[in-house]
Amino acid sequence: MRKKRLDEHRAEAALRESQPKPQLYLVLDNVRSLQNVGSIFRAADGFGVRKIFLGGITPSPPRPEITKISLGAEKSVEYEWMEDPARALLVLREMGVSVVAVEQTHSSTSIYEYQFPHPLALVFGHETVGVDGQVLSLCVAAVEIPMLGAKHSHNVAVAVGVVLAEVRRQWRNGWDPVGG
Amino acid sequence: MRKKRLDEHRAEAALRESQPKPQLYLVLDNVRSLQNVGSIFRAADGFGVRKIFLGGITPSPPRPEITKISLGAEKSVEYEWMEDPARALLVLREMGVSVVAVEQTHSSTSIYEYQFPHPLALVFGHETVGVDGQVLSLCVAAVEIPMLGAKHSHNVAVAVGVVLAEVRRQWRNGWDPVGG
Repeated sequence: MRKKRLDEHRAEAALRESQPKPQLYLVLDNVRSLQNVGSIFRAADGFGVRKIFLGGITPSPPRPEITKISLGAEKSVEYEWMEDPARALLVLREMGVSVVAVEQTHSSTSIYEYQFPHPLALVFGHETVGVDGQVLSLCVAAVEIPMLGAKHSHNVAVAVGVVLAEVRRQWRNGWDPVGG
Repeated sequence: MRKKRLDEHRAEAALRESQPKPQLYLVLDNVRSLQNVGSIFRAADGFGVRKIFLGGITPSPPRPEITKISLGAEKSVEYEWMEDPARALLVLREMGVSVVAVEQTHSSTSIYEYQFPHPLALVFGHETVGVDGQVLSLCVAAVEIPMLGAKHSHNVAVAVGVVLAEVRRQWRNGWDPVGG
């Protein structure tokens, strides 16, 4: 098994640049940590997210602490900061985007069972308190990652990667780049 | 959508404690960063990993820098440090475990297409150079996360979460806890 070389990775990435991205958005509702935001930008780039809405206390690029972790992924993913995260949801709903919270509620559906619609925005909340109640009330559904251990949540950047991976798995034979 | 309260989370976690874990292992082949190792312990706990083999320069608990990020998940996931990561693979193979590398090679299969066998060990490599060539040669297969952006890899802790989530998705109706 021969590992891919750096020049081979670069050639593949250059090919991807010309391809259209799906209408896949993230909303970060008061995610506090610079490291998490950097890590989320890198994950978002890797799964083809079109734009990240940064809400409330969520730090926004340009910040060297973000770039150190994102490896500069904020150059390939659009972003916009808004003081009120709820406003991002209203903008997205106006655009016809289904807004889904990633949050553990009494009516959350497993990410493995939920059929993610396109266009889609995923909302992730604060490291400790999760998605704000008012923001949650603007979402069409809540989904959760089944927890199997002693802890009751994942790191928010890991959760972003896990949910985006499942969305792209579901869409891989179905999303139509011409229609998107 | 009412969010789950902390006491509800704790009650659910206590119920999970008595359940058997599948034979699901991680091998960290010279993962350098304390933050990544902490984050991997938390992800491993969340997806029901039985044991983590820490190889080479991979830092091992107890370390306050690991616990800060893992939130103490190293208390619920077994671990063992070995100077030579290849030895962990030999031990696992001896136990009848299929050892699969997460690495971008010219013969890697997408995680979405690969059928993950049980018992299973997943090998993750160094942040920059990936899985060592000798370690790779001891693996039965290599799998990769399809990359869709400008960057050519994910953060290793995010990659651990993504691959574990796909393994548990595939196993959710099939893994037999009595046989495991």
